Amino acid sequence: MPLDLGAKGSCHIGGNVATNAGGLRLLRYGSLRGTVLGLEVVLADGSALDCLTSLRKDNTGYDLKQLFIGSEGTLGVITAVSILCPQKPKAVNVAFLGCQSFAKVLETFTTCRAMLGEILSAYEFMDEKCMELVETHLKLSSPVADSPFYVLIETSGSNSTHDEEKLNNFLERAMASGLVTDGTVATDTKKIKVLWSLRERITEALTHDGYVYKYDISLPVGKLYDLVTDMRARLGRSAKNVVGYGHLGDGNLHLNITAESYSHSLLDAIEPFVYEWTARCSGSISAEHGLGFKKRHFIQYSKPHEAVLLMQQFKAMLDPKGILNPYKTLPSSPERRMC
Amino acid sequence: MPLDLGAKGSCHIGGNVATNAGGLRLLRYGSLRGTVLGLEVVLADGSALDCLTSLRKDNTGYDLKQLFIGSEGTLGVITAVSILCPQKPKAVNVAFLGCQSFAKVLETFTTCRAMLGEILSAYEFMDEKCMELVETHLKLSSPVADSPFYVLIETSGSNSTHDEEKLNNFLERAMASGLVTDGTVATDTKKIKVLWSLRERITEALTHDGYVYKYDISLPVGKLYDLVTDMRARLGRSAKNVVGYGHLGDGNLHLNITAESYSHSLLDAIEPFVYEWTARCSGSISAEHGLGFKKRHFIQYSKPHEAVLLMQQFKAMLDPKGILNPYKTLPSSPERRMC
Repeated sequence: MPLDLGAKGSCHIGGNVATNAGGLRLLRYGSLRGTVLGLEVVLADGSALDCLTSLRKDNTGYDLKQLFIGSEGTLGVITAVSILCPQKPKAVNVAFLGCQSFAKVLETFTTCRAMLGEILSAYEFMDEKCMELVETHLKLSSPVADSPFYVLIETSGSNSTHDEEKLNNFLERAMASGLVTDGTVATDTKKIKVLWSLRERITEALTHDGYVYKYDISLPVGKLYDLVTDMRARLGRSAKNVVGYGHLGDGNLHLNITAESYSHSLLDAIEPFVYEWTARCSGSISAEHGLGFKKRHFIQYSKPHEAVLLMQQFKAMLDPKGILNPYKTLPSSPERRMC
Repeated sequence: MPLDLGAKGSCHIGGNVATNAGGLRLLRYGSLRGTVLGLEVVLADGSALDCLTSLRKDNTGYDLKQLFIGSEGTLGVITAVSILCPQKPKAVNVAFLGCQSFAKVLETFTTCRAMLGEILSAYEFMDEKCMELVETHLKLSSPVADSPFYVLIETSGSNSTHDEEKLNNFLERAMASGLVTDGTVATDTKKIKVLWSLRERITEALTHDGYVYKYDISLPVGKLYDLVTDMRARLGRSAKNVVGYGHLGDGNLHLNITAESYSHSLLDAIEPFVYEWTARCSGSISAEHGLGFKKRHFIQYSKPHEAVLLMQQFKAMLDPKGILNPYKTLPSSPERRMC
């Protein structure tokens, strides 16, 4: 599968496509918009729309299936998916590294893109707060010395000798130039799983830390961590923890804020600040989680008014009675408000 | 650029996106639906729709830009594009090989996908008729012994030593097992260009052969060449040449038929036979060239009636006066026919 997510144990493929999940390996295999070849969708009137082809190329008319990918079930219900699967890699390696600053995390990414090239399949980062949380709440232990930032790099390739040589060359360069101060490498499945769990179980650790305010933001990669720093300074002691982690290779930050319990005043300190900050950097207020019910009224921070109007026209055309996943994704249309 | 085409000398990027061109390296870099990050589009009412982001991930509302990709300018005019570019490969190799049957072309593809893995960037094929045409009309010469089929394989990677080793291992296997009977490899830019020109200049050679009936078909890869064989048998001497070539790695056949001059009876022998044949195999009657003016009334061979109706609704919504690239892509809508 060209898609892998922390939620792989519970999610369904129809839901993945409906939310346009990006996940851990978008960096390598690209978005579902490129890898979904066909869909079958049940429309609001109960009819089935058959766009279920398995061809890699088809330019006959408009690509209707794209409208349903990422529409969160508001335009139709996805009932079958045809997806392009890459060759299963013969060799997988994971490196878990410590970096002394976010600038070094970025420079490590540039170096590793150049040196690992086509075998790079994930570049994830987490800050020291995330590590503290997985250590405290899940009793996991860090395999490298305490660092302000951690990076998980995965390679997937067809030749283990070549892949290990590329990875070793990169690690030598990264250590020698001081980009990375400590690190460990795994080539066997069990150790790979242990390293991935440090990154994948952050969400779970957060749920043990109290009430969680979750933000899933796309930003130009250079500014990615500034939002965490600014938010931490802004909230001070009113938050328990402000943590940042995510798919750095895709410019996708998961910003999470915990508190002992839900507080309206803390929410007011976070929003709309977080959305305004993101909009100033031309980022997206929802990189991969969608807008759902809670964020639909903030769409204007990432999309111009004309685009939202056009989306509402599509919704009205495909679901005139508003029966498909109602009150989600889009703000209510002006017409409906008037009723 | 994640896109390369025979037409690269004359085409424009807005046109590429509007036609959703696939080209020579779709196999490696995927379709424009995954690599186009943002678009600016001028709509039928003269307003500009700004979907011009450069984020890799953005799930805020519906992905409007997808509707314009591949719509052949019938829904809006693309005026700016943001596109995700891969790392420029440090090493490029091309192998040009002769195969004794189409079955061996297919088996060579399977072997090469497994052994070249992530560095495979093109797998093109052409039949002996194509080679005769480029030899006759363009005075190019084949670098390998006469064969019923020829294959062009390209690798693009980040490490020339590793890439050459992978390619050599593959070639040894392919020669030893009789999949390939003759071949040549190029690593320097000049020779690479010479090998690519054999494949890229087929279209040009065809124009010197007479009137050309052109078909651009997607098929399950195993059946790809049967259409050429069946067409050749069907047309017999009424056609001058029936040739097949294309992007085998993507299941994309360019079927071309030449004759001394245009003849209505020859066209009747070809169509709708070619479309019916394709539909029986669940193929696409336009893999990458679009439907344009000539093929729009054949859309039903690749798309169900309900899908075409929905496309016509989109067209009516976005271009109610029908002023954008009129009479293209879709059959006239029933409503308009009644007027």
